[in-house]
Amino acid sequence: MSRDAETSAPILPVLAQRWSPRSFDPTKSLTLADLTPAFEAARWAPSANNAQEWRFLVGFRGDSTFETMTANLSGWNASWAPTAGAIVVGMYEDDPENKARDYAPYDLGQAVAHFSVQAHADGLFVHQAAGFERDAMALAFNLPETWKPFVVFAVGHLGAPELLNETLQAREIAPRVRRPLDETVFTGPFPSA
Amino acid sequence: MSRDAETSAPILPVLAQRWSPRSFDPTKSLTLADLTPAFEAARWAPSANNAQEWRFLVGFRGDSTFETMTANLSGWNASWAPTAGAIVVGMYEDDPENKARDYAPYDLGQAVAHFSVQAHADGLFVHQAAGFERDAMALAFNLPETWKPFVVFAVGHLGAPELLNETLQAREIAPRVRRPLDETVFTGPFPSA
Repeated sequence: MSRDAETSAPILPVLAQRWSPRSFDPTKSLTLADLTPAFEAARWAPSANNAQEWRFLVGFRGDSTFETMTANLSGWNASWAPTAGAIVVGMYEDDPENKARDYAPYDLGQAVAHFSVQAHADGLFVHQAAGFERDAMALAFNLPETWKPFVVFAVGHLGAPELLNETLQAREIAPRVRRPLDETVFTGPFPSA
Repeated sequence: MSRDAETSAPILPVLAQRWSPRSFDPTKSLTLADLTPAFEAARWAPSANNAQEWRFLVGFRGDSTFETMTANLSGWNASWAPTAGAIVVGMYEDDPENKARDYAPYDLGQAVAHFSVQAHADGLFVHQAAGFERDAMALAFNLPETWKPFVVFAVGHLGAPELLNETLQAREIAPRVRRPLDETVFTGPFPSA
């Protein structure tokens, strides 16, 4: 089964092939060393004024950080994420007094994108999720008041879709879709929906 | 002069080599076709609920869209960005009633990161900037009320640093720096500054 994006122009294979599975191989483990290249890629992402207002908390399957993370996931995420080798909580500093910080979520997005691309190049898969209680997660890890956990991402080796329940299995093998480029990019008036 | 990132682990060359210049070659032009692979890369970025809440307005040096964009840049950006082959305004839909839209700036960041990586692979350079008046830019292009221009990025061929004024020239050749990884990634308590 090819999960490659159907692009209208050739792009880097790592960008065309990257996707976000829910099936992770529960027999494979990860260590911090396995994720170091991906974190290095995130480290060198650009950010407004080079502020790098991101931090990453990592748990590995079997450790207490991972357990606490999975206990704070909601919805479907709680069913598939625990089989990943690692879970990362991405956070940014939220400071309404500081205009430059306005870009903190945007920059966190860039850093996680770089992480995902490098991880894919390393044979790993990343699935980002918003389904968790931010306040509960911040409390569980005693995060400083200004730091806002904003995204959770599972990282691991790809598993078989059959490991998922029926609903998730259907999503896992559904074709990948995106809006056509000519509805996204414009040179004159804003495109109508 | 090598601008490669000094990484603590090997990463994809395109990620290590990507950087954000201010010197663009004013003799080289770009067309939409030149940017199609980069926009395709952005198109296939992940987003919360696959909402893809991003749009990109593109101006090419010499056209009226580009002129209007440069007229609305502020600070240093107004001096260097006009030599780029293209300028893109990245925007997201801002809807406080819709919780999922909370991720729109984050997802825009991911899409622009994918754009930047693909552009670099294509021999182009991208410099993102926050220095512009959002309201004025939205007004100049008659954007729908809910769409928020959030980032401007210049795209072009690399130019000589000597094209810049002294202050910018010094920034252009300064070493690229990032916070060490062990201050960014943690597995236990939040790292103190």
